[in-house]
Formats: sequence, structure tokens, C-alpha cells
Amino acid sequence: KELELAPPEVGFDRVKMEDLLKRRFYFDQSFSIYGGIAGQFDFGPMGCAMKTNMLNAWRSHFVLEEQMLEVDCTMLTPEPVLKASGHVDRFADLMVKDVKNGECFRLDHLIKAHLEKMMMDKKTTAEQKAEYEDIIVKLDGMNKEEMNAVLRRFNMKSPVTGNDLSDAMEFNLMFSTSIGPTGLVKGFLRPETAQGIFVNFKRLLEFNQSKLPFAAAQIGNSFRNEISPRSGLIRVREFTMAEIEHFVDPANKDHPKFDAVKDLVVTLYSACNQMEGKAAEPIRIGEAVKQKTIANETLAYFMARIYQFMVKVGVDPRRLRFRQHMSNEMAHYACDCWDAECKTSYGWVECVGCADRSCYDLTQHTKATGVKLVAEKKLAEPKTIEVVECVPQKPVMGKAFKKEAKDVMEVLSTLGEDNIIEMEKKLETDGEYSLMVKGKEYILTKEMVTVKRYQKTVHVEEIVPAVIEPSFGIGRIMYSVWEHNFRMREGDEQRTYFALPPLVAPMKCSVLPLSNNPEFAPFVKRISQDLTKNDVSHKVDDSSGSIGRRYARTDEIAIPFGITVDFDTLQSPHTATVRERDTMEQIRAPIEDLGEVVRDLACGKRSWDEVKVCYPKFEQQETTRAG
Amino acid sequence: KELELAPPEVGFDRVKMEDLLKRRFYFDQSFSIYGGIAGQFDFGPMGCAMKTNMLNAWRSHFVLEEQMLEVDCTMLTPEPVLKASGHVDRFADLMVKDVKNGECFRLDHLIKAHLEKMMMDKKTTAEQKAEYEDIIVKLDGMNKEEMNAVLRRFNMKSPVTGNDLSDAMEFNLMFSTSIGPTGLVKGFLRPETAQGIFVNFKRLLEFNQSKLPFAAAQIGNSFRNEISPRSGLIRVREFTMAEIEHFVDPANKDHPKFDAVKDLVVTLYSACNQMEGKAAEPIRIGEAVKQKTIANETLAYFMARIYQFMVKVGVDPRRLRFRQHMSNEMAHYACDCWDAECKTSYGWVECVGCADRSCYDLTQHTKATGVKLVAEKKLAEPKTIEVVECVPQKPVMGKAFKKEAKDVMEVLSTLGEDNIIEMEKKLETDGEYSLMVKGKEYILTKEMVTVKRYQKTVHVEEIVPAVIEPSFGIGRIMYSVWEHNFRMREGDEQRTYFALPPLVAPMKCSVLPLSNNPEFAPFVKRISQDLTKNDVSHKVDDSSGSIGRRYARTDEIAIPFGITVDFDTLQSPHTATVRERDTMEQIRAPIEDLGEVVRDLACGKRSWDEVKVCYPKFEQQETTRAG
Repeated sequence: KELELAPPEVGFDRVKMEDLLKRRFYFDQSFSIYGGIAGQFDFGPMGCAMKTNMLNAWRSHFVLEEQMLEVDCTMLTPEPVLKASGHVDRFADLMVKDVKNGECFRLDHLIKAHLEKMMMDKKTTAEQKAEYEDIIVKLDGMNKEEMNAVLRRFNMKSPVTGNDLSDAMEFNLMFSTSIGPTGLVKGFLRPETAQGIFVNFKRLLEFNQSKLPFAAAQIGNSFRNEISPRSGLIRVREFTMAEIEHFVDPANKDHPKFDAVKDLVVTLYSACNQMEGKAAEPIRIGEAVKQKTIANETLAYFMARIYQFMVKVGVDPRRLRFRQHMSNEMAHYACDCWDAECKTSYGWVECVGCADRSCYDLTQHTKATGVKLVAEKKLAEPKTIEVVECVPQKPVMGKAFKKEAKDVMEVLSTLGEDNIIEMEKKLETDGEYSLMVKGKEYILTKEMVTVKRYQKTVHVEEIVPAVIEPSFGIGRIMYSVWEHNFRMREGDEQRTYFALPPLVAPMKCSVLPLSNNPEFAPFVKRISQDLTKNDVSHKVDDSSGSIGRRYARTDEIAIPFGITVDFDTLQSPHTATVRERDTMEQIRAPIEDLGEVVRDLACGKRSWDEVKVCYPKFEQQETTRAG
Repeated sequence: KELELAPPEVGFDRVKMEDLLKRRFYFDQSFSIYGGIAGQFDFGPMGCAMKTNMLNAWRSHFVLEEQMLEVDCTMLTPEPVLKASGHVDRFADLMVKDVKNGECFRLDHLIKAHLEKMMMDKKTTAEQKAEYEDIIVKLDGMNKEEMNAVLRRFNMKSPVTGNDLSDAMEFNLMFSTSIGPTGLVKGFLRPETAQGIFVNFKRLLEFNQSKLPFAAAQIGNSFRNEISPRSGLIRVREFTMAEIEHFVDPANKDHPKFDAVKDLVVTLYSACNQMEGKAAEPIRIGEAVKQKTIANETLAYFMARIYQFMVKVGVDPRRLRFRQHMSNEMAHYACDCWDAECKTSYGWVECVGCADRSCYDLTQHTKATGVKLVAEKKLAEPKTIEVVECVPQKPVMGKAFKKEAKDVMEVLSTLGEDNIIEMEKKLETDGEYSLMVKGKEYILTKEMVTVKRYQKTVHVEEIVPAVIEPSFGIGRIMYSVWEHNFRMREGDEQRTYFALPPLVAPMKCSVLPLSNNPEFAPFVKRISQDLTKNDVSHKVDDSSGSIGRRYARTDEIAIPFGITVDFDTLQSPHTATVRERDTMEQIRAPIEDLGEVVRDLACGKRSWDEVKVCYPKFEQQETTRAG
């Protein structure tokens, strides 16, 4: 999870890039006129359009291509759900407080920064450096006591005031609120979208005609009350996630489409390599499964699909790797996890988690609600089993619970074997058993239920599906794509731009009249209409300013193609120029072709090289009489 | 805002419709395995796909067509922002509590239900009925004391327990939480997306090259802690909004594209008509502006565009009207407001609000932050004005505030005239002035600033733009569209379906092999690939079950077109049938045509009637040997 220090790319200038991002309002700090709030950012028109394009690309790459069931669940989540999932008890970071002014620091970040500072000190010996390095590597796996010991051993103080620091304490990262007017129903803003899918498992399985495997997906915001967020878009308190929960038979995690990706080469940084101090290695996905580096085909299939998606939206494959979690840093719900990490000026940043959550979540929600979250699996041959069943005595129940008896019996019918046996014992020892139905307690007595035992031949067995979860942090991916595609024009450091793939660029095309000559207007209008007809988002820039300056402006907002109407356009046959952003090459094409050419370029149907050979190259505006 | 009772449509059966919506998982109550939470709903695969389509249609109809600046702002909002907007003090509903068990009731709903019940009573006289009716109509405009008086006069009790009720109290509808680990920064979940746009006004204006008018738009979730939400999707605690803030010169609210909509006929229910007990009336938009029924062209233009959007996504125009707010029911920020209301079995439901918020919000945020939120307007002729300016004494400031001096001077330079004069007075009387910069207090002394006064000739004046705000409740529109498009097949009440326009239907096409004959498979695959190539979302249903049963299933999920591969498909020239959902008519077309035909039908390029004449009609599967 943590960011590793890595040397920045040669020549990359984060200040320059952030200046461009803010100047052209890709994003900015939220509520900045109120002084801003740490860890919250707003996307402006360019960031918002890019985000929309990225989410559409995600939907098409994953949801449509793999026929996933997309859902849209609420963010406000009642406490019992997140108690069951483990978040209420365990979704916390360690922090320390400045004992004088109460300022809070995330402890692992504080320790890391302190040790890194000491390592920079000339007086530090090589031996000490190695020791500090070792502590930093192990930080993610340390518990409260261990971290506290490090804090005290190095006698760390507040980096801001120099004051003493409190002992380490756990801080739960969920935002809490209360639902409804009484203030009695406690709730949280969801820390991940996944739980909304798990609690809907039964309906989704039903929708999928009770067949496994299937995947559900969700795009939406989640919230984490980070202790002291810095590092821009990388660590925020509110963020858009896109998550997939792929439900699969735990005994068979093969994937039917694995063959299609098995030859893809990805860079893996396995837990072994990390422990042994080895580097990350390129390997074919198929090979990695064979070697058991990646545990199963389904996990590996999704890693391959993640890789393809990341490269498609503009991540540099040379700065993309999969890092396996060490067993002691794994989230409480995961049994194996690979992070797709992008290298940025902040170090390697986790952008996508790909976790095997096993049967953890469904099991937990079943325990909490008594509702069985299982799928049926056909047995190779029928077998005989012992059945424990709970039979309600309807007349007695009806008398006791009146109208509500039906609800009580419905819940009784969903109880699992363990619960039934527990109930039987309770009824034996205490003479009564408490059952929760729709949030209300009902006391059952011996007279109300009988527990029956018998043998039965069955052809199916019930299994709790395992879950493979690819989970995307959209903001982090966007930030990485910006860093990987930030460019300066050779010889002119002021002309910065983003070489974004057309797929995610905020707009696909610009239309620029060479000057404000009124004769250009009808051509500009016609081209704009053709582009609209071809669903090409575009911007007409008829402001004053030289054509070069206007190109520079459209480069800044990453528009990949530019059409210029010039004096030659006025002559028959009417033509205009098309310019490609990254190469700045231009061609000259008949205006009736432009809509389709740019559409094909924008959606990747044709490449610039393919288009280039069909039309004459254009060097400069040929007719240059004044406008 | 309130729902008026209206007789349900003849033959409409809400129970049947809700059964279909839940059975095919369009939506369901959130966390239902935990007993559910009132006012929260999850969209399943079909609801989610429909919502995505509806939002894409919205984006294309408004954002792209009108070149709006779309933004994406955070939901967590610090208290000062919502204090300034008036929500902290005034965004409340009146409620009463059961004095014994604490159950809460929304007071206006309680009174209305009580009076309606009394009106049903045979013993109630016509005179009394008229009086109760009158109270109900006036309810929206009543204040706390008036409503309390009604409560006591009729001696109302809890409708659930019959217990006494408390006096009316205000309950703020915002969910509160705290941001950051100290617990000291109070925040709320936004009750509307609009504030995110207002606080970014400066940047957006800059992005628009400082020109008015322009519109910003935002799609996202908002939250209102409703007191006792019932009525399904109509009243929920978390909901998706799509909002537009159109910034315009308050002295000129004409709209350049008004001519394009002026002949559109809409149904208006003006405040006058409501007060005088008259009915709503159809009228041409242009006429309504001429008569001053609608205050200005911009407001009217957006009402027309709203009308067009609603009809496009499936709202029945005969069940759509615009109702003007009475002056006493207006939200605290609005100076005029028309609601687009859809008639449903819950009565007339507000689905879109179209409000003139005047300069309220920008003015409030300027007051709270000292940051001027204004646009420049060119004057007809230059004029001379008195300037009050505050000049910082840089060396003194630098000495006092060190590195922070720059920030302090920046804030100083944004102070408005009123603030400067206030500062001048304070410095005179107290010798110091307290300035907030990035949340920190700085004490300025007389030595640090001079206040200069001089005359200046200016060519522009600063104006605070007015805001026209169309605000869409996406869930309510979806619900209305479902009601308006719920159908039963003649003679078979069990065969229910939704006649959704292809534009918003969750999927556009089904592909059905007549039977599981393996010879059909390659044709199904080829058709599916062609549909994918043409971006037509579709579902292959090769499950067993008669073709009629499978059609019924695809009708339930509103798939408008169905392709069936039958035995004639196997013969050359290969053809398949295409079926239209609403008419159940079928044609037979060559399989190479199918991709484009269905694409054109789905995106509305061609109508079914146009396609029908190009291909032979098909009556039944002609070759019917067993599969």
C-alpha cells in the first residue's frame, strides 16, 4: 500500500505538470475559496470529461466484454453491515498526536519520513542505513506495539512543532453519521463499493439463473478519513472506485478465456522476490500460473485484463508492475493480493488491487444475518447426507406472533445447520431462543419449533463461492496517466502538453479557422456538424491569436486532432488540414472526408500512419494573404 | 414539492409493476438481508444499465449540445460552505415525535394524511371537506406555528400507536459527519450538487475565457436525511441528481437559441391558476414569455429543453406539466421556480426543478469568504468611479509573517470594498484587524496596510451573475418512466413488460436460437459479433424454453428488438427474423444486414415503420422440424 521511494523520471517536472493541470482546470482543491480541505479535489471540465471517458472505457473493457452484472448501491451503510465485514473493528490506521496542540500524524508515514531523513545524514554509517532501510521495508507488517517501539527508540517528535508525541492509537478510517431523525441508527460512508455487491449476492445469483461463475461490477464513490492526506490525488478522502467481484467455485478457479491472455508478458514483483531482495521480473502470464507464482487462472486472467486496460488508457507499460502483498500486509479480508502499481514521481503507486477474498465476505454476512449466501453445485454422483431441519409449529407461532408469524417463519427457514443446532441447544438449556427478524427480537420457546433429523439423497451441494476482486482507484490511474503522458515540446519548455490516447482525451478534435475572415465561418460550421453527426466531441476555437498559439492551447487540453480551415479551403475542391498532436504532422483532406477520418482516428479504427498515406502531407498554410 | 392526490391511471396496477421491477432486479431495497433501511435503494443490473443510458442521454442532450462545462465535485462539504448557502440554518422539515416511543413523523405528511382520512368519513359535511381541502393546499406555505395550530386543533395522535405527539420541531435534513482525525472539522454530505459549482465559479468563468453567459453541469449523488421516507423511489435519502447552473447577466436574460423552442407547447400550472383554483393550461413557450407567465427567455428555454428531454427518455407528455411554486413555498435560495411534474400513481411528482436562484448563492459565498465572485461586463460608455484600494507595506509584512506574508497579501488583494472599509475602521478604532488566511488568523496593524482612494475611468463594470438552475432527480424520472411505460399484453395479464424507448432500454437487442440445435450456434455467434461491432448491447438467450416464453422474458427487461435464428437461417441466402417488442411484429432480413438495421433502430436513425417496408413481413417460424 505504501509508496516506495523511486528516482523520478529524468526530466520530469512535477511543478510544471501541476501548473498545467490547475491552469487548464483538470482538477483543483475542493472549496479552495474557503481555504480548501486536505484530501478533497474537484475535477474541472477537462478532468471530468477525461474521467467520464475513462469510466466508459472501463465499462466497455470489463462490464460489456465480460458480460458482468453492473449494480449501483447506496453509499450510506448501516453499522451492522460493516461490523460483519470487519471494517468497524479493523479498518484503522495507527496515528500519534502532538501532545501539546493535538495535531495528528499517520504513524507509518512519520516513521518512514524520519528514517529517510536520518539516512540522508552524512554521519549515518552504511550499517545504520541498512538497518533503517530494513525497518522501512517491514513497516507495513508491523503491529501497534512494534511501531510504538520504533517511535520511542528513535525518540521521534512532531516534525512540525518538535513537541512530544502520544503513544500510537488506532484511528478508524470510516466517516460515521446517523441515519434517520432519531439519531439511533448509526451508519458509515462506505469505505469500498464491494459490500453493496456482497449483500445483493442472492439476487445477483438469481439474475444469473443460479449459475456460477459470474461477476458483478460497480462504479461509485467511497470514503476514507485519511489521517493527514498529502500527495495530491494519490491520497484522498473521497474517491471514485470501479470494482469487480467475480464469484467462482473455490474448488475450480480455472478460467474459460485464459488461453486468450496466457502469452501476455507482465512484470511481477512477487512476495518471494521482495523478501529475498530481488527485483521484479517480466514473465508470461501462463508461465506464472504454471510456476504457482500466481495462485490460479482466474486471478491471473484478471491481472492480464487489468494490464490491457491500463495500457489502453495511457499507462506506460514500462512503468507498470504487479506487486504481491506480503502475508503480513494483507487486508483483513484477503488471502492473496497483487497490486497493479504505476511508477510516478511519488514512487510506485498502487492503482489497482487484485485480491482473492476467498469466501470471507459471504460467510461473514451469512453469520450476521442467518441468510445463506451460497450457490448450488451439481455433484459428480448423488450422495446421501444427514439433514437437520427446523419445523415451525404454525398454530403456536400464529398465536404468539400474530401477523408477524409469517416473517418469523421465513427467517427460520433460512437458518443454516449450525444455527439450528445452536437453537436446539439453547431451547434445551434455557427453554427459549432469541431470533432477530427485521431488526426486532422474537423469543421462541420449545413449543414453537421441532428440530428434525433425517437422511436424504442429494444431487447438488451448496457451496460458498470464492471471490476474486479487481478494484480500481480511478483518480490514481488518472494521475499516473497524466505523469506518463506529460510532454514538453523540444526546444520550448513553456509548451507543455499531455499526449493522452484519444480514447481518454477530454475532447477528440479542434476546429480552427485560420483567422476571423467571415468566409471561413460556413466551413467551420459544416465541419462541426459533420463531427457531431459522427459523435466526435470537439471544440471550435475562433478566438484571435496565431494558429500556433491556438494549437498550443488545444495541446494543453490534450486534444489529439486539429482541423484548420484556411484560404485553400475556400477554393474548390474544398479541403482542410488535419494535424496530429504528438507528431505535429499535418495532412490535407477533402472536407467531406473529415468527419469519418477523425471519428476513425479517435476511436482507434485507423492509426495516424494509416491515414497519412491516404492524403497529401501538408507543410504550412499555403495561401497566407491577410484575413 | 408535495405530492398531490390524483386518481391513478385506469388499469394501472402498481403492485404488479413493482413485482416485475423487483423480480427482474431493476432495483430493490438496500441491505435487505439486514432488514433494509428506509429510503435507500440499490439498482440491479437492469436498473443500473437504464440509469447509465439515461445519464448518457442527459449528457448528450444538455452538456454536449449546449457546450456546458461539466464538473465533478466532492460530496463531503465543510460546514462554512453550507452555512453560507443557508442550508445549515434553513434546510429543515418540521417533525413531531410520539411522546412515548420517540417515533418521528414529518408533520405536513401527518396532517395531510389525517385530513384526507377525515374527508373519506361519511359523516364529514361538504363544508368541512372544503375546509380540509383548503388546509391541505396551504400546507406547503405554513410556518411552524401555523402547522402546530392545525395539529392541536384536530388533536392529532400518532397514526401508529395513538400516543400523544410532541410540538413541532425543526429537523435539519443534512447528514453530518466530521472530517479528519481530530473530530474538529464539521462537515455534511451535500444536499445538492449545486454548491460545488458555485464555489468553483471563478475557475469556471476563467475557463470560459471570462465570458457570460455559460453553464456548468454536474451529475452526482446528494443526500437528505428524510424524516420518514415511504413511497419507494420517490422519497429517498441518497439520490443521483443532474444539475445545471446557467450563469447569466441579470440585466439580460434573453437566450440566443430561444427561437428554436418558442413554438413548443407545454402544459403550465401557474401560481395564479393554482391560487384561483383553475386547471393547468397548454401554451406555446414563446407565448408564455410574452404574457410574462414565465419570467424570461432563459428560464423558458430550459423548460422547453427539459420537456424535450423528458419525452425523449419515455415520459408521457400528457402526464407532464410545469407547476410554478407559490411564493411561500419557494426554497430559501429561489426567486422563481417551475417544477416539471410527472403524474404517477403517487400523484403529481416533482421530477425536475427549474429555479431562478438570482444572485443569491454567489453573493453569499462572497460574503463568507471575501472572494469576489463576479464577471466583467463591458459598459456602453466608459465611466469614472471612486476606487478604494488596500496597499500592503511589503517590508513590514515580510518581517512580521515571514514566508506566509505572500499568502496574506494575496488574500488582501481579493478583499472587496466593504471589507476594506471595515478593515480601515477597525485599524482606526482598535489598532488591529484580524484576517483569516487558509484557516489561520493573522493580526494586521496600521503599519502593515494603507488604504488608498482615487478616481479611475473604467470600461467594464463588475456584475454578480444570476443563476438559472434546472435540477433533475434521476431516480424520480426513472420511476415515472417505468409507470408511464408499464404494459400488459392484451388478454394475458401475467405478461407484463416495459415499453421503454430504445434510448434508455437496459439492452437493445436479444439473440435467440429457436432451439438448442448445434447448427444454430455459428449463426448466433456471427450475429452477436456483428452487433458488438455496431455497438449494440445485446443478450444471447440460448436457454431452453419455448421461443414465446423467451420473448416474454426479454420483454420484461424491456429489450426492444429480438433476433431469432431458425431453420430457415440455415438455408442460403441466410436470413433471420427481427421482432419489435411493442407491436410484436416481425420481419425477415438477410443476416449481413442485421447489425446495421438494429443499430439504426436502437439509436433512432430509422423507425420500425421505415424498416418494415424494406423487408418481408414474417408471420411464424416456417420450418418447424424438431431441434
